[in-house]
Amino acid sequence: MSKPDIMKARLPRGFADRPAADLAATHRMLEAIRETYELYGFEGVETPFVEYTEALGKFLPDQDRPNEGVFSFQDDDEQWLSLRYDLTAPLARHVAERLDAQSLTLPYRSYRAGWVFRNEKPGPGRFRQFMQFDADTIGSASPAADAEMCMMMADTLERVGIPRGSYVVKVNNRKVLDGVMDAIGLGGEENAPRRLTVLRALDKYDRLGPVGVRLLLGNGRKDESGDFTKGAGLADEAIGKLTIFLAVQSTIALQDVTSTVRRENHPPGDVHTFEPMGGGDPSYFIESTKATLDSLTQHFGSSAAAAEGIAELNAISEFCISAGYELDRIRIDPSVVRGLEYYTGPVFEAELTFPVVNEDGETVRFGSVAGGGRYDGLVGRFRAEPVPATGFSIGVSRLMAALQHVKSPIVTGEASLGPVVVLVMDRDRIADYQRMVARLRSGDDGKFEPVRAELYLGSAGMKAQMKYADRRRAPCVVIQGSQERERGEVQIKDLREGARRAGSEASAASNAEYRAARLAQESVSESRLVDEVRRVLAAQGGE
Amino acid sequence: MSKPDIMKARLPRGFADRPAADLAATHRMLEAIRETYELYGFEGVETPFVEYTEALGKFLPDQDRPNEGVFSFQDDDEQWLSLRYDLTAPLARHVAERLDAQSLTLPYRSYRAGWVFRNEKPGPGRFRQFMQFDADTIGSASPAADAEMCMMMADTLERVGIPRGSYVVKVNNRKVLDGVMDAIGLGGEENAPRRLTVLRALDKYDRLGPVGVRLLLGNGRKDESGDFTKGAGLADEAIGKLTIFLAVQSTIALQDVTSTVRRENHPPGDVHTFEPMGGGDPSYFIESTKATLDSLTQHFGSSAAAAEGIAELNAISEFCISAGYELDRIRIDPSVVRGLEYYTGPVFEAELTFPVVNEDGETVRFGSVAGGGRYDGLVGRFRAEPVPATGFSIGVSRLMAALQHVKSPIVTGEASLGPVVVLVMDRDRIADYQRMVARLRSGDDGKFEPVRAELYLGSAGMKAQMKYADRRRAPCVVIQGSQERERGEVQIKDLREGARRAGSEASAASNAEYRAARLAQESVSESRLVDEVRRVLAAQGGE
Repeated sequence: MSKPDIMKARLPRGFADRPAADLAATHRMLEAIRETYELYGFEGVETPFVEYTEALGKFLPDQDRPNEGVFSFQDDDEQWLSLRYDLTAPLARHVAERLDAQSLTLPYRSYRAGWVFRNEKPGPGRFRQFMQFDADTIGSASPAADAEMCMMMADTLERVGIPRGSYVVKVNNRKVLDGVMDAIGLGGEENAPRRLTVLRALDKYDRLGPVGVRLLLGNGRKDESGDFTKGAGLADEAIGKLTIFLAVQSTIALQDVTSTVRRENHPPGDVHTFEPMGGGDPSYFIESTKATLDSLTQHFGSSAAAAEGIAELNAISEFCISAGYELDRIRIDPSVVRGLEYYTGPVFEAELTFPVVNEDGETVRFGSVAGGGRYDGLVGRFRAEPVPATGFSIGVSRLMAALQHVKSPIVTGEASLGPVVVLVMDRDRIADYQRMVARLRSGDDGKFEPVRAELYLGSAGMKAQMKYADRRRAPCVVIQGSQERERGEVQIKDLREGARRAGSEASAASNAEYRAARLAQESVSESRLVDEVRRVLAAQGGE
Repeated sequence: MSKPDIMKARLPRGFADRPAADLAATHRMLEAIRETYELYGFEGVETPFVEYTEALGKFLPDQDRPNEGVFSFQDDDEQWLSLRYDLTAPLARHVAERLDAQSLTLPYRSYRAGWVFRNEKPGPGRFRQFMQFDADTIGSASPAADAEMCMMMADTLERVGIPRGSYVVKVNNRKVLDGVMDAIGLGGEENAPRRLTVLRALDKYDRLGPVGVRLLLGNGRKDESGDFTKGAGLADEAIGKLTIFLAVQSTIALQDVTSTVRRENHPPGDVHTFEPMGGGDPSYFIESTKATLDSLTQHFGSSAAAAEGIAELNAISEFCISAGYELDRIRIDPSVVRGLEYYTGPVFEAELTFPVVNEDGETVRFGSVAGGGRYDGLVGRFRAEPVPATGFSIGVSRLMAALQHVKSPIVTGEASLGPVVVLVMDRDRIADYQRMVARLRSGDDGKFEPVRAELYLGSAGMKAQMKYADRRRAPCVVIQGSQERERGEVQIKDLREGARRAGSEASAASNAEYRAARLAQESVSESRLVDEVRRVLAAQGGE
């Protein structure tokens, strides 16, 4: 190599480029989500990527490394700036600013799609830049606002192609969890960090099962690789009370065939059939919701917080059913915790229930694609008065992966054809070819639909140009050599029709058939170029 | 205040939130640009916001602070990462990676819209995060690729609502400038930094005029505030030769009525009329182009670089005219320099020529909204072989400001109406109201267009709810008090019709007229809710 200073072209770990097909499918999905949100009366608002670090706060799940999860840098006045790690903290700052300026009417429903950044160890399907699509209602303390979030989640999933029965929006309430914490002596501000450790242990129930979670609540747990995770250090009595809570969870979970797949010590690949919960009987869910709430009331209803939380869950359930959202779409599930610290009331999670095979060869549910909850304290950090708020966030690339899995029309829509390619037969006549391309693009007289078209811009010969047109998925190419030019003509070669006839051409029994196959290429008057190309495209219309 | 730890809600300097109306207009503009690019056969590709600092290179105009202009931070393996400052350097890295992987067919046309970041001093209309919309063709050394860029710039501007005659795409060639540099002894790699200083002095011709530029080429220039800018330190002979080049510029510029406004020592507010250049005679432009190229050949044609550049300008001019892009849309202009260091051939700039009043009260042209050029060396930094490339970039918020100025339909389209608002008259019946909203959203039976609708989620009374609906631009509100409920009815209050009749109501001479005005509110059967609301919306259709 003659250039010793050649640099390796590479991206930092956890970042990725996005090709055209991805962009087009994501664009369609985002538009469908946006339409759903607008149907609910939500309006767009966007905030920048950079915020003061202190305005974002420290709400990431990994409490051991509170600053590590964020990309930060100092401004020239020494103040710390960070790339946003979600869209909720910046929205809280935005709303507080507009409330300060008295330029916002509450309640305020808004949505935004945007990239967020986490300075975490990347892995397969785990990026340091990813997109979220959020919706939030600020200024309403009513459970009706939370119920609306759940209904909008359900509508959005169905709108992008996840069929009813293949997802469930699960609802819980942090206040219920707080009541449980009260019951084990972990109430109050001073116990907040330890409470979070306990919540995160409960959140692992799906993955670790009751035994694993009990270890994490006590002294700690050693995983299969021998790594030890320190436990919450709870006394046996407290663990005993949490076991009752876990029992409420597992009563529900055990009724759910698919959940058993992920329980600890279960041999991989054992359960492969997935049946609708309750055998498709709606009364199963109503009974199940009632049983759940009754059981919680019985064990933890003496806590004021838990009782309030249970009442809110009741109201959300009532609103959803009244609006026609039955319990196969939205249901109460006490196992939902959500990792973020700022939630203060109802929390929700949209889980896709269809089976996929994971990295270990086990058949599991696809899992969560969106989540959220009520965060009444987040705007209040900037304001003298409390400002209630609720919202949820869709993981865009995760949902896109799900759409590919269920073969949603949003991703399976046949890849569109490329532009018409005008070949360059005679390099001295580029200005002529350029004019043909311009005529196609303008639709000649502007009266008709313009035709997508491009000039071949490389320096290769005829064969390579045809190959290029094929790779561009061109519907046809336009050719003018010196002979055609002298006759005032152009050749239009129909690449779709040509490809279709290629098979019959190979086995053509007679010269006549061969000639018929060749008819995919024809000479027309140059003056009729645009009309003739449009005719070829129309004839391909069925494709 | 009872909360001593209230934080001030604020954004770092140079960053801004974007309200709904902005987002909607920008969305429409971006879609129009995207459609134009796709008509030319360009396809989307996006790269992440973060790159290795070394992969981005140091190409920002401010060479005195090469690293200052970029937001950078260290990864946990100590490597430096940066937020991208444009979309061209990341595209070069992306293309090089795909060429390394042999997964790219050249020529490759692509586009992308994206945010970029500059760690610079913010000012009015000058942000540290802003959006660019780029198009690039990689792998074609032909001036036809450059000509295509210019035509696409022109088409894009007209497509978004800048009328023909209100803009011009100006084309120059760095090779011509290189020839001029050769002639003053500033050729060769070793003079690159000094050459850049000279180019940037020439680039200020529009603002400073010939006297100011001459000072910057020599020992330096003191501006009105007394600040001194060090000059390029050229000898008198070199400045003399550049004066000839400036003379070519000013010959063109002087013919252009509007340019005179910005010349040094011109009293502000003196020239307010703007006439089409050459009085609208197309031969003016052809003569002007010929005169420019002849003059350049005469003075600098002995330089091989300049001769090559002039030939390319000739070819671009020929291709554009052949494709129907007359010289009022695209023309050669030797005053175009472009600040970025990586350009190697043709450079272009789209200037809007209509007048605006600047901060100093002077009437000036609106100015540049897009620019670009050929950057044959940028991909080559990663590859053994050279990879020719050309492209341009639109400043999205700058173009949006221009569209507001010319009242493009993209921004003036009447603000759309908000959602139907269902009021809450009886807080115990929220589930009932929720069901009405859900019926509107689903179009009742799914057969019809869904109706955008929202439930009032606040806790205020009737009067505040009506005010809320007004602010939401609701076409109508749905009301059900206990009386209506008992009769199985709802009231639909038409807010648009109501507003229209408010005037006549005030001056109503008789009770009959008053009652007619009140008809904007009517009771209908609850079962017919969706049909009746749809009827009210249809009746408003003309608005």
